[in-house]
Amino acid sequence: KVIWTVLVTILGHASSLPVGEDALCTAEELAKYRIIFTGKWSQTAFPKQYPLYRPPAQWSSLLGVTHSSDYSMWKENEYASNGVRDFAEKGEAWALMKEIEEAGEKIQSVHGIFSAPAISSGTGQTSTELEVHPRHPLVSFVVRIVPSPDWFVGIDSLNLCEGDHWMEEVSVDLFPYDAGTDSGFTFSSPNFATIPQDTVKEITCSSPSHPANSFYYPKLKILPPIAQVTMVKIKKSQLGLSAPFINLPAKNNEVIDTVS
Amino acid sequence: KVIWTVLVTILGHASSLPVGEDALCTAEELAKYRIIFTGKWSQTAFPKQYPLYRPPAQWSSLLGVTHSSDYSMWKENEYASNGVRDFAEKGEAWALMKEIEEAGEKIQSVHGIFSAPAISSGTGQTSTELEVHPRHPLVSFVVRIVPSPDWFVGIDSLNLCEGDHWMEEVSVDLFPYDAGTDSGFTFSSPNFATIPQDTVKEITCSSPSHPANSFYYPKLKILPPIAQVTMVKIKKSQLGLSAPFINLPAKNNEVIDTVS
Repeated sequence: KVIWTVLVTILGHASSLPVGEDALCTAEELAKYRIIFTGKWSQTAFPKQYPLYRPPAQWSSLLGVTHSSDYSMWKENEYASNGVRDFAEKGEAWALMKEIEEAGEKIQSVHGIFSAPAISSGTGQTSTELEVHPRHPLVSFVVRIVPSPDWFVGIDSLNLCEGDHWMEEVSVDLFPYDAGTDSGFTFSSPNFATIPQDTVKEITCSSPSHPANSFYYPKLKILPPIAQVTMVKIKKSQLGLSAPFINLPAKNNEVIDTVS
Repeated sequence: KVIWTVLVTILGHASSLPVGEDALCTAEELAKYRIIFTGKWSQTAFPKQYPLYRPPAQWSSLLGVTHSSDYSMWKENEYASNGVRDFAEKGEAWALMKEIEEAGEKIQSVHGIFSAPAISSGTGQTSTELEVHPRHPLVSFVVRIVPSPDWFVGIDSLNLCEGDHWMEEVSVDLFPYDAGTDSGFTFSSPNFATIPQDTVKEITCSSPSHPANSFYYPKLKILPPIAQVTMVKIKKSQLGLSAPFINLPAKNNEVIDTVS
């Protein structure tokens, strides 16, 4: 959890910035990053109710945005937007893309949107490229856990700018969140809307505190990370024809299962 | 089929160009397009064996590439690459992304890769942005039909350059293709590898000529389009903060079903 701890500090900093203080980023105008998402949802690490078929454990498309602190895609302990609800419940991206578009048009709080292809198994990788700007140095994204009621992993407002320069590389361990819109307890629960809607909450090995919860492992202190994301700055010299592909790892499914 | 006919002419032109003749494109250096993919796979238009659950009819992520005539993502009557096979059979994008990366590195035949989020129903839309270059004016992409053995829709080497300028807008009706790697006849057929592998073939209302085929409609002359794609050039004045979002239609699922 060392990396995570470091990043929580960064996240905490970003989210505690007063509106407008994004201008503190004095780094060069644009930076491009390769973002690599790695699923670590194996049956070894998460044996309980591991989905084997119809559908087997997998990850939705990744949908992300680079933005200023005037925009928030999702936030722990706040209510999910309709777009995040549709995405977390069904993997339907359209409403969320429209919300992002509107934030970009109305309050100029968005720099760009990015997406990466779905992963057809619990362990595997996907990747794409993203661009940040000194006025829009924050990265947020969501990936739906499939199957699940309304569970996802993601990043909320990670600041890639450090004063006068862009971070070279950053990795974050990811843990599951509940969007608060569907009351299912297990991966394959039937749809059952949560009324009134609850806020976005992290799912841990002890919360929700109910033996039926798919992530309830009373003997563990913390869950192993269910996924990981790495963002690597693309060097200027690498920009050009093959820029989008720099640093793609050689193989898929090269994830080593955590023996738990 | 009028639009399609026009485009077949363009496609025919592009694919008949001798190697190197891409240089005939003398348009300005870069052009950006918004690409909007619309699923038209409704139960009304395609009543036979329409998948209603586990999983219901839907579309995978869209994975595409802008390139020169030295690269081909997929081509009718040729063998699918391993990457296209993995994508068409399982929606697994990694191997195909690696193939594209290698084509970009080795023969500089690729400008960029793009992807758009999956669509969780048969009728719906998804969208992203792509960039073309005079030396890489061709667009190809694939979207897997889910569920299906190895069926997909897509575009092969559509040339967006017309001599000294970039096309303003282009729409193409899409029809299903069989990747030739799995011998299933119906949407939910179990996996059954085609050995030896067959070439990529269009699936029509009469071919494969077998009543078990999910697209076999002996009373029709041609299938209705199962999807459509539109590419709209993004105006220079629209580039900037909200560029990626220009022209997103207002609503999802606004597709009018064809009554057949």
